Amino acid sequence: MAKVLEKGQIEAALKDLPGWRHEEDALVKTFKLKGFSGAVAFIVRVGFECQKANHHPELSNIYNKVTLRFTTHSEGGVVTENDVAIARTIERIL
Amino acid sequence: MAKVLEKGQIEAALKDLPGWRHEEDALVKTFKLKGFSGAVAFIVRVGFECQKANHHPELSNIYNKVTLRFTTHSEGGVVTENDVAIARTIERIL
Amino acid sequence: MAKVLEKGQIEAALKDLPGWRHEEDALVKTFKLKGFSGAVAFIVRVGFECQKANHHPELSNIYNKVTLRFTTHSEGGVVTENDVAIARTIERIL
Amino acid sequence: MAKVLEKGQIEAALKDLPGWRHEEDALVKTFKLKGFSGAVAFIVRVGFECQKANHHPELSNIYNKVTLRFTTHSEGGVVTENDVAIARTIERIL
Repeated sequence: MAKVLEKGQIEAALKDLPGWRHEEDALVKTFKLKGFSGAVAFIVRVGFECQKANHHPELSNIYNKVTLRFTTHSEGGVVTENDVAIARTIERIL
Repeated sequence: MAKVLEKGQIEAALKDLPGWRHEEDALVKTFKLKGFSGAVAFIVRVGFECQKANHHPELSNIYNKVTLRFTTHSEGGVVTENDVAIARTIERIL
Repeated sequence: MAKVLEKGQIEAALKDLPGWRHEEDALVKTFKLKGFSGAVAFIVRVGFECQKANHHPELSNIYNKVTLRFTTHSEGGVVTENDVAIARTIERIL
Repeated sequence: MAKVLEKGQIEAALKDLPGWRHEEDALVKTFKLKGFSGAVAFIVRVGFECQKANHHPELSNIYNKVTLRFTTHSEGGVVTENDVAIARTIERIL
């Protein structure tokens, strides 16, 4: 079971996660890559980390933009420590 | 300039495009792949074709599902022969 | 520690692994995909499985061909049950 | 037809291509990425550029290393301006 985070905890975590926002019970960020191919390569790179963490995003892509949305479905669609952890991982690999 | 298609023409084209639907001025299909990794590999495979055609989708992914939405922005967001062409290409490569 | 396989055990395993060969202390197979983009998508797909298994190939690619070579470095570069396991996984996902 | 380059021309081009070497009638470079997933994402990123240029490498990968080897087969396996051009493109996208 992943620890569910309260609003204050989420806001504290977001201080170290530039560009991430708390939106409808999820952590969300839109990334701008170099062109469409940069976006696809980014999806692959992030995909490996998500598989490793066994925590998968709602992902959307238009041309050079990729939006990742993480929420914890197993806890009923709320933000947990798992969402913060994967956001941190993604920031680290960029 | 890509030829804009009328409703009847779109419906005729969809007969040979199983699973594709005409929705809000776009051609849309949701694909179910083998797991998350199958979905990511599919995004790569489709991505190559889209780059070749210079026609990019609005793409969304959750776990093993990938939804592709094609519309022709340069014609103001309507369905053109280019949307039909890329849908046919994607069906052929699967 | 992965169980090192003797020649007879490797040959027995290869009976269920069409196209795989035992070559210089490794299991090797060359795959023919649909074009270069099919090859790249295959590398991604296989890559996810290899990460999951924490067992990585020596991989080579020319256009639509991808050769995978698995050996177990931690045992001194010999064929172990881990090489057979990843070969089986790859056959299953194709 | 791609312009075949003489030894002096290749050496001149390599001055602006750090890490690339002239080896057995090809331009070759080994890239070190962040882990295996960084390597796979790099293969995807480079793959898009190679498709765009219609010039494909001999590629090999072990864990976080990717070696690209470009030669012009249509000219009999020699270095041409096309090999220099794709090497420059790859350096630019990194």
